[in-house]
Amino acid sequence: MFNDGIPMTIGAAPTGFTLHDAVTASLPIGIFDSGVGGLTVAVAIRRAMPAEHLLYLGDLARQPYGTKSPATVTRYAVKAAEFLVARGIKALVVACNTASAVALDAIARRFPHLPLLGVVEAGAAGAAAASASGRIVVAATEGTCRSGAYERAIGLRRPEAGVTCVPCPLFVALAEEGLTDGPIVESVARHYLGPLFGAGAAADCLVLGCTHFPLLAPTLGRIAGPGVRLVDCAEATSALLATALAGCPAPAGGTGGLTLIATDAPDRFARIATRLFPALGPVAEVELADL
Amino acid sequence: MFNDGIPMTIGAAPTGFTLHDAVTASLPIGIFDSGVGGLTVAVAIRRAMPAEHLLYLGDLARQPYGTKSPATVTRYAVKAAEFLVARGIKALVVACNTASAVALDAIARRFPHLPLLGVVEAGAAGAAAASASGRIVVAATEGTCRSGAYERAIGLRRPEAGVTCVPCPLFVALAEEGLTDGPIVESVARHYLGPLFGAGAAADCLVLGCTHFPLLAPTLGRIAGPGVRLVDCAEATSALLATALAGCPAPAGGTGGLTLIATDAPDRFARIATRLFPALGPVAEVELADL
Repeated sequence: MFNDGIPMTIGAAPTGFTLHDAVTASLPIGIFDSGVGGLTVAVAIRRAMPAEHLLYLGDLARQPYGTKSPATVTRYAVKAAEFLVARGIKALVVACNTASAVALDAIARRFPHLPLLGVVEAGAAGAAAASASGRIVVAATEGTCRSGAYERAIGLRRPEAGVTCVPCPLFVALAEEGLTDGPIVESVARHYLGPLFGAGAAADCLVLGCTHFPLLAPTLGRIAGPGVRLVDCAEATSALLATALAGCPAPAGGTGGLTLIATDAPDRFARIATRLFPALGPVAEVELADL
Repeated sequence: MFNDGIPMTIGAAPTGFTLHDAVTASLPIGIFDSGVGGLTVAVAIRRAMPAEHLLYLGDLARQPYGTKSPATVTRYAVKAAEFLVARGIKALVVACNTASAVALDAIARRFPHLPLLGVVEAGAAGAAAASASGRIVVAATEGTCRSGAYERAIGLRRPEAGVTCVPCPLFVALAEEGLTDGPIVESVARHYLGPLFGAGAAADCLVLGCTHFPLLAPTLGRIAGPGVRLVDCAEATSALLATALAGCPAPAGGTGGLTLIATDAPDRFARIATRLFPALGPVAEVELADL
């Protein structure tokens, strides 16, 4: 099911996908996240590549990853990858910043021929391109910040850049609660980001370094201020994936689709997905998988 | 290690503990929660019974329980109970409202002779006693609210009571973040509780139905208003436990102690515990256990 050509891990070392047969091309793109947040990535991919079928796994039984240790997140992430690979996928998107930050290499070692893309790599590439001053703020989970993954990934592209990673765990709870704007979100955003974007601050780029955060983008953009560019990892990932899969598109005429799988609480998953992602339409069916 | 007398589950059907030998008396009290929140219960027990040794398990690898399905929470809770029982305990306190709400019966079936106490039962007893009007609001997690456990437990004592259970997931994130007062907590509390305690509302009792929530008590009390009694499950549990263990106290002259065990991220556990629970003193050592 994988290419036998160049082993490929966009997350670790960007190269091009090499995928050659029609069977592979017709397989779905696998996506996983600890929960519903990664659907921001699925929505962006659907928009960019409407003919592709997406197989989305939300590891609700073990979420959140953002507060767990690297070893535990890696174990969970490799299990999720194994599940999707066993179902048959042509590429895997790790749509969870924490898992991308700590587990991408382990997944690449486990599946050396699997085209693999993590949101951290995509977000870092986006930030490196978007920032003029090189002063970049990354809003992320505790786990992502602690890993130093954004600093490393941005540093590879802009060694002179100054990266400040700020843990914003409440943003996750707010987004899942459906509180995406209004005074509560505003005051929490000011609490985390206010000190970094005040008068005289040099930062000109804010990376939404958790898949939930694009849901809060209007408020975060307002708090950061008009001169600051927001980098949405979901959009950045979708753009990189579209380029990488250009040589291996879904069969012409396909209308694509989205299969949702949860490791727990499929009803809750469907409810939150429907509320947070109107672009998906009402989510009627979520498969339950016990990893 | 257990009494061979009357099987005892305070959570399911309150009766008295029957514990008789000195070996049993000298064993620690087992406590578990999905994370750090249950330390509110441990602190209350330490204060009431300073000679007892406490063995606390925080299931950080699988937290939060509040958003997971009953079947999953039950599986996790039984595993946690098995772990503590294997270490040797004279009683088990389920210091997690969600696990108390959905998994207490399963634990009682697995260990029919283990003295067992859940925070929901204790909180419900406290509320039934504290409310004059019988209009009771329970602030809890999604899982606890969905289980209907508080309605049932309060209804057993006050069949005429009107119980409103309101899911307040953001309170958990706020408490873990150390945001226990100030404008952010105030606005979130107003968002959840304002409509239930406005002018003309009959509710006169607010149950802090999640072990994190006592940390926010001053703010929640202010929002609920001066005529409303707050029921702190941690205090209610400690009071019930002290009565139940009166016949089986730790050996005289003991100074007690608290052993902390986490299923993941022991450093994070120690850090949060130190910050949130100054009464414990600096938490230096947290054992890591892989369940």
